[in-house]
This record gives sequence, C-alpha cells and structure tokens, in this order.
Amino acid sequence: MAYKIGKRTIGFDNKPSILSYASVVGKKEHEGPLSQEFDYHINDSFFGEESFEKAESKLQKTAIGIALDKIGLKAEDIDNIFAGDLLNQCIGSSFGLRELGIPFIGLYGACSTMSLSTALASLFIDSGAAEKVIAVTSSHFCSAERQYRFPLDYGSQRTPTAQWTVTGSGALVLGKGKNKPYINSITFGEIEDYGITDANNMGAAMAPAAASTLIHYFEDTGTTPQDYDVIYTGDLGYIGTQLLYELTDEKGVDLRCKHSDCGNMIFRRESQDVHGGGSGCGCSASVLASFIMHRFEDGNFKNILFMSTGALLSPTSTMQGESIPGVAHLLNIKIDDELSN
Amino acid sequence: MAYKIGKRTIGFDNKPSILSYASVVGKKEHEGPLSQEFDYHINDSFFGEESFEKAESKLQKTAIGIALDKIGLKAEDIDNIFAGDLLNQCIGSSFGLRELGIPFIGLYGACSTMSLSTALASLFIDSGAAEKVIAVTSSHFCSAERQYRFPLDYGSQRTPTAQWTVTGSGALVLGKGKNKPYINSITFGEIEDYGITDANNMGAAMAPAAASTLIHYFEDTGTTPQDYDVIYTGDLGYIGTQLLYELTDEKGVDLRCKHSDCGNMIFRRESQDVHGGGSGCGCSASVLASFIMHRFEDGNFKNILFMSTGALLSPTSTMQGESIPGVAHLLNIKIDDELSN
Repeated sequence: MAYKIGKRTIGFDNKPSILSYASVVGKKEHEGPLSQEFDYHINDSFFGEESFEKAESKLQKTAIGIALDKIGLKAEDIDNIFAGDLLNQCIGSSFGLRELGIPFIGLYGACSTMSLSTALASLFIDSGAAEKVIAVTSSHFCSAERQYRFPLDYGSQRTPTAQWTVTGSGALVLGKGKNKPYINSITFGEIEDYGITDANNMGAAMAPAAASTLIHYFEDTGTTPQDYDVIYTGDLGYIGTQLLYELTDEKGVDLRCKHSDCGNMIFRRESQDVHGGGSGCGCSASVLASFIMHRFEDGNFKNILFMSTGALLSPTSTMQGESIPGVAHLLNIKIDDELSN
Repeated sequence: MAYKIGKRTIGFDNKPSILSYASVVGKKEHEGPLSQEFDYHINDSFFGEESFEKAESKLQKTAIGIALDKIGLKAEDIDNIFAGDLLNQCIGSSFGLRELGIPFIGLYGACSTMSLSTALASLFIDSGAAEKVIAVTSSHFCSAERQYRFPLDYGSQRTPTAQWTVTGSGALVLGKGKNKPYINSITFGEIEDYGITDANNMGAAMAPAAASTLIHYFEDTGTTPQDYDVIYTGDLGYIGTQLLYELTDEKGVDLRCKHSDCGNMIFRRESQDVHGGGSGCGCSASVLASFIMHRFEDGNFKNILFMSTGALLSPTSTMQGESIPGVAHLLNIKIDDELSN
C-alpha cells in the first residue's frame, strides 16, 4: 500500500523493484566519461532511419529490447509502459512503442520524464495495479535542436549557457523482486517559475523546481543530505547546479558534498564542447539505467535520491514572451543491506 | 487496493469518487445541444488574453477554480494534479497550472487525456497515495487549427471528414466520498495503428484503438454492452463511430443501442457546420464534467463506460509520411444504487 509521508511524499510498503534496465546512447555520449557504462551506442545519428525523430523512436525501442532480454521477458509480459519525450506530441514514444502492444501511459514532463515515469510505474507495482511495467524516455540532440532552437544545417553558434541535449534512452523494468534496488518513496514537484526567459539557459529555469522538490522531500521525511549516498539531479548542468546550491543554502541545506548532476557527468566539460553540460530526457535516463544501477549492483550504493528536472517550455511559449516553468520529481531508491550482495 | 481483472483491467476496492466537476466551453459549444449543461462559457476566443494558447490555459484554470469552489476547497487542499493537452509541450496545462502550487503530473494522451488523467487520479486515491486530486484537460479550436493544420487567417477549406476541435475544458476533483459516482475500474489501451495517414480523418485513426480497448475490457470483465447504461467514446465523430461499430461487430459485440460519442453530442450536425463532429481533449472532458455527471446526479445513470480516444499524430510525423497511431483508455464509472438519491 502507498501512504503519505508529510505533505508531498508518497511511501511504498511493497518495495517496487528495478528488475532490469538498459541504456542506449549516441557517439558523443559514448566518448564521454561514462563510456563503459552503457549497454549500446550508435555511431550514426540516424540509427539507420530516415529522420532524427525515427532514430529517437528506435533508441527507446532498443533500450526496452535490451532491458527485457536481460531478464528473459517479452513485451507481452509487461502490463503497462510509461513513456514520454521532448518531441511535439511525444512522437519519440508513441511511434517507438506502437508495435509492442503494451497498454501505453503517455507522459509529458520534459526532462523530468525519467523520474516521472518511474514514480508512476512504482505506484502501479506497489498498489497491485500491475505486475511488471516499463518506464522509458529518450532525447536526441538533432531532433531537439531542430525543434527547440535551430536546424543543425544553419550552423548556429551556441551560447555559453546552452546545454547539449543527450542522444540516448534509458529503460527500466519494474516489478516485485528480491535483492534488487527498489523505489522506497517518491515526491512529485510543483511547477516553479522564477521568470527565466532564456531558452539557452534551462538549468537556471529548472533549479528552482529542483530546490523546491528537494526541500519538500527533506521536510516530509525529516532527513538531510547526509542520510544519502548521493543526491542526483537530472540535467541542471554547471550553471543550474550552482543556482541549486544557492537556493538550498537559503533553506539551510548544503548539498555540495552529496550532490551530482547527470548533465555534468555524461560529458567531459574540458574537451567535449558542451558548454553548460548535458541535458534532455535521455540524460538522466541513460545515467540512471547504467552508472547508477551499476553502483547498486557493485554494492557502492544503498540509498540515493534521484531527481530528474524538466523545463516546460515550448518554442511557441518562448515566442509569445513567456518565461520557462520548471518541474522536478524525486525518487528515493534503496537496496536492503542484508540483501545487497 | 487495486487488483487486476483479467489481462488489462484494474479494479479498485476503495471507490475513488468524483467529488466535484466543472466545465468551461466556447461560444460555439454553448450554442450546441448541451448548452445548458456547462458551468461557464466564453464569447471571446481570446478569453481576454493575448493569444489562443494563453486563452486555453485560462480555460483549464477557470474549470479548476469552479470545480474547487463548488465544494469549498482551495488549491492547497489538493495533493496532485493530472493534466495534459494537445499543444506542443502541453503548454496549455503547464502555463495554466503553474500558479496553483500543486504537485504536477504531466500527461500526453492527445484527446484520450480526460480518461488517462482520471484513471491515474483514481489509482492515487484508491492506493492511499493521495487524498484529493484533480484531473483536467482542455483544447481550443484556434490553437489546435494553427498547430495541426493551418492558421485560421488562411481561411482554409475544411475537408468533409475533418472534425471541429472543441474549445473547452473539463475538470474533476477526486477523493474518497459517499453518495458520489466512483471509478470502479480502468483499462489502459495499447497503441493501435491501422495505417491511416489523413490528418483530417482522425476518427478513422482512433476507431481501432477504441475497439481494442473496449473488447479487452469486455473480455476481462465478462460483461457485454447490455450491462451498461451508456458506453461513451470521446471524439470518434460520425465517421469514426461507424468504423468502431464495424470493428466491434467483427468481434460479435454490437454497440449500436448503447453507444454515444461525445464528439457527436456536443454540436448540431445539421446546422453547426462541424463536418465530422467535435474533437479535442476538451470534447470528452467538457461532456463528462457536465452532461454525464448531471445524469448521475439526477439518477438516470448507475453504471457507464467512458473512453476518451486519442490520435497520437504530430505535424512533424505527418510531414514525414507517418501514419496516425491511436490510443483509448476506459473508465467504468458507477454509483451505488442505495446511495444514488
């Protein structure tokens, strides 16, 4: 059964577990520091397809295929799939997943999608509504640049604060399981909007949402950063990370010694020319479904927070002079001590 | 607790109830057959805002405000809000709801959003994850035409099969309650794609998804159309409705005497020049949160099926020659006999 912890946090009795996971990334991500962590990488941005959008769909499909293969499951063993992406009308997900025949729960959380999909998936497992589900998302540098900024062919210069959208997908299979990392609790965030209007500075737009959700979680649970191995954010990047520290400092919470941002981890800042760091739904998804899961497997992690962050902008809203609202959803992922080896 | 019924249907023990509801529609909808059912209507497509998109956001905000007022609740009494819409990046929802301070679960189900949001909201109430939640969605004729087809200023002719996107929003407040209609069970649909490529014939694209979900539901529950007062679909329109009948006939299920489509109900076919009928997230949402809820209140309905249907197309996918996948999610809404008056 689910139960409320404090005002916003939802706890689970039944330990919805991550039974399997897989990550698929692009060439640039494969050349980064996490190179050896990913299950599969592509060298061709088109992934053998006719468009970047179709390539993105194939990233999701491939990640799901690998995750299912690892535990010998097939699509028909899955009750529900929770998916979304950055593309208009989430076509990365709907076109990628239409052949699977799995009841589809479409989400839109921009880059917060990985924690949003996993949070909902956990509740389905915990409540008895489903036995096995998939949470998945993706992003693709080329489809995102074309949609949110400029077609790549323009050769536009990127601003110093701009982040680099990760080409990648991460998929989790959740169910009841033993000896596996499980979702202990979740906190859904409210939309925060501090009036940032620069679509090339999304870390700044998302930091207030990250701070808000994190502070709510600490208040609800009576815990502090010291209680966790690591606190991951999704894709705040270098600038957003600094702003997060400033905002949480104001609440008396110092994250510095415990915090990592997937957007800062996935590329080499000094040599990969990514400016503000990595971003996109696929950023936190591919890091969660690789590096982070591996640290649970090798016994390094027992108890972490994972919070993807989303900037809910649209090119239309930006052209209409609107600011960029942000949202962040949090997962507390644990593994039981006696069972972790 | 939630439990699985058959393969795809999820049943609830705790009767997640519709505590309040509200609908807001545009001028044309107010001139239609359901005129007296809606809580509020606007005569100005801009709703006093600077753009159609901002007007659409205001539709959602207004519907939520009325629904909360009816039962004396405030935004801070609500644990979660489930919302989505047709606009790129769902800005109708994110910009409409950012001031409420309610933890936000963003969805993308195109016109299936009202049953998607209500289904997830029900599980949150049933499982104990939340005490009170809101499910809401919207559409706006002018923002949808501009995004999916042509800006209105072009004065384009509409094809005979084209449907008219409803300007409207419907909002439900769900929680535990007595003497109220409740969500007895839900069935999430898989994505169905029969290869329809005409973005002006979305009823045809959605009918296979509607048939699939409905047949799964009847198989799971061992019921037939005769067991329900009415079976509502969201916005198949006149053409999609005929196709639904043909597809369910093939499975030996005759819907004709029990079925209504919100898209066929909201406008007068003979005089309102809507061609294929109404459509859009706001179509099934505003009909559910008005006419259908009123029939539960006046004792006419005891047990219905409500299934919004979504066409998961994007202008980008259409330009890339893709077909239109559809999805449909189903709610079984009941009221207990002895408590209904």
